[in-house]
Amino acid sequence: MTDTIAAEVDADSGVAVIARAAKTASRALATATRARKDAALHAMADALVAEAPRIVAANAEDLDRGRAGGMKESLIDRLALDEARLGTIADALRELAGLPDPVGEVVRGSTLPNGLRLRQVRVPMGVVGMIYEARPNVTVDAAGLALKSGNAVVLRGGSAAASSNEVIVDVLGRALAREGLPGELVQSVDRYGRAGAVALMRARGLVDVLVPRGGADLIQTVVRESQVPVIETGVGNCHVYVDAAVDVDQAVRIAVNSKVQRVGVCNAAETLLVHRDAASTFLPAVLEAMRAEEVVVHGDDRAAAAVPAGLRFEPATDADWSTEYLSKDLAVKVVDSLDEALEHIRAYGSGHTEVICSTDTRSVQRFTTELDAAALIVNASSRFTDGGQFGLGAEIGISTQKLHARGPMGLSELTTTTWIVEGSGQIRE
Amino acid sequence: MTDTIAAEVDADSGVAVIARAAKTASRALATATRARKDAALHAMADALVAEAPRIVAANAEDLDRGRAGGMKESLIDRLALDEARLGTIADALRELAGLPDPVGEVVRGSTLPNGLRLRQVRVPMGVVGMIYEARPNVTVDAAGLALKSGNAVVLRGGSAAASSNEVIVDVLGRALAREGLPGELVQSVDRYGRAGAVALMRARGLVDVLVPRGGADLIQTVVRESQVPVIETGVGNCHVYVDAAVDVDQAVRIAVNSKVQRVGVCNAAETLLVHRDAASTFLPAVLEAMRAEEVVVHGDDRAAAAVPAGLRFEPATDADWSTEYLSKDLAVKVVDSLDEALEHIRAYGSGHTEVICSTDTRSVQRFTTELDAAALIVNASSRFTDGGQFGLGAEIGISTQKLHARGPMGLSELTTTTWIVEGSGQIRE
Repeated sequence: MTDTIAAEVDADSGVAVIARAAKTASRALATATRARKDAALHAMADALVAEAPRIVAANAEDLDRGRAGGMKESLIDRLALDEARLGTIADALRELAGLPDPVGEVVRGSTLPNGLRLRQVRVPMGVVGMIYEARPNVTVDAAGLALKSGNAVVLRGGSAAASSNEVIVDVLGRALAREGLPGELVQSVDRYGRAGAVALMRARGLVDVLVPRGGADLIQTVVRESQVPVIETGVGNCHVYVDAAVDVDQAVRIAVNSKVQRVGVCNAAETLLVHRDAASTFLPAVLEAMRAEEVVVHGDDRAAAAVPAGLRFEPATDADWSTEYLSKDLAVKVVDSLDEALEHIRAYGSGHTEVICSTDTRSVQRFTTELDAAALIVNASSRFTDGGQFGLGAEIGISTQKLHARGPMGLSELTTTTWIVEGSGQIRE
Repeated sequence: MTDTIAAEVDADSGVAVIARAAKTASRALATATRARKDAALHAMADALVAEAPRIVAANAEDLDRGRAGGMKESLIDRLALDEARLGTIADALRELAGLPDPVGEVVRGSTLPNGLRLRQVRVPMGVVGMIYEARPNVTVDAAGLALKSGNAVVLRGGSAAASSNEVIVDVLGRALAREGLPGELVQSVDRYGRAGAVALMRARGLVDVLVPRGGADLIQTVVRESQVPVIETGVGNCHVYVDAAVDVDQAVRIAVNSKVQRVGVCNAAETLLVHRDAASTFLPAVLEAMRAEEVVVHGDDRAAAAVPAGLRFEPATDADWSTEYLSKDLAVKVVDSLDEALEHIRAYGSGHTEVICSTDTRSVQRFTTELDAAALIVNASSRFTDGGQFGLGAEIGISTQKLHARGPMGLSELTTTTWIVEGSGQIRE
């Protein structure tokens, strides 16, 4: 056997042991009361604060390794923990404790003509797998969301955060044990390195759902290779379409907010489509506003004609229409019709969030019924596609697939359902 | 290139063309009114009846090929069509027309504090793929369910039914065209043979969901190999557990009905677990009833001790506990406790349907909260896990997975949702 194969065999059996322990542990949680789970969330939060020095020390090792390896400063910032950040992370667990328990919710029910009493009840998935990058806050978020929804979690964090995650998982597991819950509810497969991620993707039947969280490459790899059912999250090539009939000032505010309010996120706008009849009024105004925000515009010929002095402008290439910049870059195209805008979005959109700015009910009606995306937003910023903004509570990601969950995924989306049927001797004739 | 690779490349591009045409066609349907879709269902039904002679003639070719190839009589029966059967199949389409339209249903909604009006609306998946075996009625069922739920369907039927399916797809497509809908809403990839099925499984991004329907081998192959999201259906290793405290006569009726009312289906019982405290009264009664129904019992030692004269009995092996007989065979085991029964079901159950017969509320409570299956039935037959029996209308299959749909899948389960957000200029601060 080559070393790689040996490592994979080792990881496969190791991850199987971990996942089986997680399944067994999840049974204790499936029937736990909300009070019990909320107490555990508070205990986890308290433990993170109490053990902050140990976690920060481990994090310092990750930061040293990262800096030595030439990690970009923006990634260093995502990786870094201090007592204040840990306090914020702990508070998120306490907020989770305040949310309703999805488990046990009766989704629908009826009494059948033959007297059978039928109800469809939310139950935990069992074991949730997470594959993510070097953001140790995700370790805590995922553990908290899984616990509240009655699931065990098996984590594969980025190797760059390995020291931080190892200590965090240990702290959380011991907090659970003190509450009389199995520490195996929160486990990591990081000790197996990359082979651990592969093993997690192969653990069909042991892991009930796998949620990748991170950049497009990570997500696509998991979607392509996993034999465990996956929920695809977070790739957003979002468009703002400005219609012929439009409130220009409002549309400028929406376009700017969609682009710059936070640039590194999946619900930020990447392309602005402008109806030619609005171009003469809207384009100069929006490009001036983008200049003030230091946005780099990648535009077509008609956009080029409206570029103000001082705006960084580059001619758009085909690649621009499909790029998720995640930066202060924006593709701009003038279209001849709503139909052309719909065709463009169908060709290049990622099915995340599409925005229309229009005062014409006919355009709004067509945009919201003919497009196919997780969220279709009328006269508001693309940045609203978010579990917190939607009032759904904490989110584990934003699903861009059609199966199971679409859009912001909260606690309910980490559950499945069981039909419970109560009879008094009914048989089928 | 080998012939196989050439065939696969050919099938990949051919299936891609078919799936793209399906996606385009599905757009016409996504915004169609219920009245329009119901009219199309009636037109499809009428066309099947009007063209029955042509369909029956094509079916005769399949039957001849099947008989010449030594096809089992039970499979010949499933494959066979005559005018009466086509009438029944057409009636199923008319019944679909009578069901509510899932598309446009508002699942939830609210007005946010900032005035954004939020609603989560059911929308079609887009393109549904079906891979199934030689039952031409499934061709019509799948086309009807897809149409009513606003989806295009791409079918891969069994090669044994190729002639029947070719004519049926042609008849349905022309009926749609007469109603002003694209015929590409119902297409088949059968012309590509097995390579067509492989291409369908690879068509990620072109096909939105793939539903395999058939035997365990077919389903497992699709689950393992598909890159398109799959809904796993219909493998059932269902148990009936008879508790210590039990109404013996009622439990006998339930056990017999669960086993023999129809044996070749996924919700038939395959294993009977009997608490030792009920064994002395229940076992003789149920085994006598099974004898009368000509059931072959595969039992453990304690079951063997209660075998009446004339019952066909074989000592159970480990394989019996995991076998989905789909025949008049039943595994029987005496357990020492409810815990042992739960452990057995966890080890061998397929997560489809589990039944408890008990008069003890504590046992019922544990059974319905500690087990993990699509349906948990108390004091009634396992045969009730069925979309029609549950009052959900027509079903496309019974999902045994946890993602998206669990248990009987009807029209709603062939839809996804979109968040529609209407604002008046809101931006994020």
